[in-house]
Amino acid sequence: MLVLFTDFGIGSPYMGQMRAVLHQGAPGSPIIELFADAPAFDARAAAYLLAAHAPEFPPGTVFVCVVDPGVGGARPPMVLRAKGQVFVGPGNGLFEIIARRAAGFEARAITWRPQRLSPSFHGRDLFAPVAAALASGNDAAVAAIADSAWRQPEWLDDLAQVIYLDQFGNAITGLRAAKMSKDQAVQVNGDTLTRARTFSDMPVGRAFWYENANGLVEIAVNQGSAARDLGLTLGTAISLP
Amino acid sequence: MLVLFTDFGIGSPYMGQMRAVLHQGAPGSPIIELFADAPAFDARAAAYLLAAHAPEFPPGTVFVCVVDPGVGGARPPMVLRAKGQVFVGPGNGLFEIIARRAAGFEARAITWRPQRLSPSFHGRDLFAPVAAALASGNDAAVAAIADSAWRQPEWLDDLAQVIYLDQFGNAITGLRAAKMSKDQAVQVNGDTLTRARTFSDMPVGRAFWYENANGLVEIAVNQGSAARDLGLTLGTAISLP
Amino acid sequence: MLVLFTDFGIGSPYMGQMRAVLHQGAPGSPIIELFADAPAFDARAAAYLLAAHAPEFPPGTVFVCVVDPGVGGARPPMVLRAKGQVFVGPGNGLFEIIARRAAGFEARAITWRPQRLSPSFHGRDLFAPVAAALASGNDAAVAAIADSAWRQPEWLDDLAQVIYLDQFGNAITGLRAAKMSKDQAVQVNGDTLTRARTFSDMPVGRAFWYENANGLVEIAVNQGSAARDLGLTLGTAISLP
Repeated sequence: MLVLFTDFGIGSPYMGQMRAVLHQGAPGSPIIELFADAPAFDARAAAYLLAAHAPEFPPGTVFVCVVDPGVGGARPPMVLRAKGQVFVGPGNGLFEIIARRAAGFEARAITWRPQRLSPSFHGRDLFAPVAAALASGNDAAVAAIADSAWRQPEWLDDLAQVIYLDQFGNAITGLRAAKMSKDQAVQVNGDTLTRARTFSDMPVGRAFWYENANGLVEIAVNQGSAARDLGLTLGTAISLP
Repeated sequence: MLVLFTDFGIGSPYMGQMRAVLHQGAPGSPIIELFADAPAFDARAAAYLLAAHAPEFPPGTVFVCVVDPGVGGARPPMVLRAKGQVFVGPGNGLFEIIARRAAGFEARAITWRPQRLSPSFHGRDLFAPVAAALASGNDAAVAAIADSAWRQPEWLDDLAQVIYLDQFGNAITGLRAAKMSKDQAVQVNGDTLTRARTFSDMPVGRAFWYENANGLVEIAVNQGSAARDLGLTLGTAISLP
Repeated sequence: MLVLFTDFGIGSPYMGQMRAVLHQGAPGSPIIELFADAPAFDARAAAYLLAAHAPEFPPGTVFVCVVDPGVGGARPPMVLRAKGQVFVGPGNGLFEIIARRAAGFEARAITWRPQRLSPSFHGRDLFAPVAAALASGNDAAVAAIADSAWRQPEWLDDLAQVIYLDQFGNAITGLRAAKMSKDQAVQVNGDTLTRARTFSDMPVGRAFWYENANGLVEIAVNQGSAARDLGLTLGTAISLP
């Protein structure tokens, strides 16, 4: 299974071009679009989002991950293997949290280069062909990579900010709910929110936080928009009083 | 064939997670996203939209339907079989119009429960696995269900309001065009609209109504936006003078 | 491989209905959504966008193209074969640039008609079944077509305007970069932009133009929005000083 995780924009033609390359390189593999609207240009926020979602997919899944503001620049293209899954993308920290939460991992720089490498679309020309090869059981040319080239040791284990807003206005944070006590409150933009089990446990219109289906702290309003009611945007800081 | 009908939001990561479960449970079945932006939280409006679109799909199609504001609450998960098709989703009225327009149907409550059932994402954890099993020819554990648990006898046979707005600003209503006479006018927000066959029969910029490709009364403006020009939103009432 | 190129709107239910018809008619063919937001109602702008993207796909690809404001009206449904690829859609100029840039081509009017042909949705009822048949190696009933019925000889070889805006606010034009000199500047809304190789070669926030991954002149701002900063919309004129 091939999984796309990008900031290309929902319905963007870049996704279709990626799919065409993946289909040709790995004809038998299903291709699943997980995120097309990961936090744009923000490899750090995206790293926490990716780490929360990857465990939902089976071993052997190959993730093609493109949140890559430095495309065409110095960051190394890389492959990370962890927990039986494979991640292909830029070495800009996007895989830092995946690696950190794994018992072990193997990181490599991609040394293979295609005949045509457009400077602005490594997703199509470099990452997709490598991911398709790996999904088909073929190898791609790789080399050793230094930790300093891709690790981000200064990033915290959890990111106390909004890292995704869904269409309902629910705000996903980079905090793992398993780290929270049952009566932990969450503060955001001056509001203090208590924990609930799910939407239907709260009155319509009431804001709360809960452990979402991927294990993250999520801020929500029953049948309403937390983004609008609490003024949340990507990057809004969360605090734990 | 598996068909997704949800209010999850276009391009939402929830759709990707559903697809992953469906692919694993029914590897050979194509998965088609019909609606990701069905009327949010509004099982009633969604019921008329679903009933108009389901007949386009072949017998044997399994629909996974999630417009489910009460997720984690009391509404029963259910399976409806009607006209050779199968519908999996919440028993909140979403299948009322499908059932009512069928010559016969079979309704069951889903009694199977997964090992992990997140309180907020029954689409992924409960409905998708059951749909995949049914699409693969396997059974899912079900039990009898009372009419009172899921039927909505007070809902009318046709819903005289806007139930969907497409990207052009065309407004789909819950009224079946086959019930209308050839010269039936439609009133909305004080405007009276006459019937046309299709867009190109009207001058550019003129508002009209027509029988859309799924048999519903649709309000449109040739090469313009009925939503903007007539002030239409989801839920805007229609009347027949 | 079947490729969808439409102005139906991202995530629209029209796409799902097209996919259902294509899956049934060509069960083994992958279906790739390239554009769902091609320039709405604008067959001319769309023609340049299509011609820039088609060469990315392999010979044998069947494109289903629907930018068709005249649906139900006089424009002929047609099939164009060029460079080993097949294009199915309305004869309203949408295939003009494809044909003009090919060494040779074969154009035919579609004479086959389905049992049910909704006047507003030829994409589903006419173009999709024909495309599926062609993708499966079957013929569709066609006849000769006059140049005057579908060619647009007055259109220029390159279109000096914005023909697509992506989610980052990058603006794709209908100009081919290969026609430009290395130091060619581009003027738009009073701003003069120089050429760069890619985003990371420019300071954050600086506007420039570059040859995008499909060979077109694209106006961009490194980690910013050219649409917002330069006031670009679909149709904004470009000039070459």
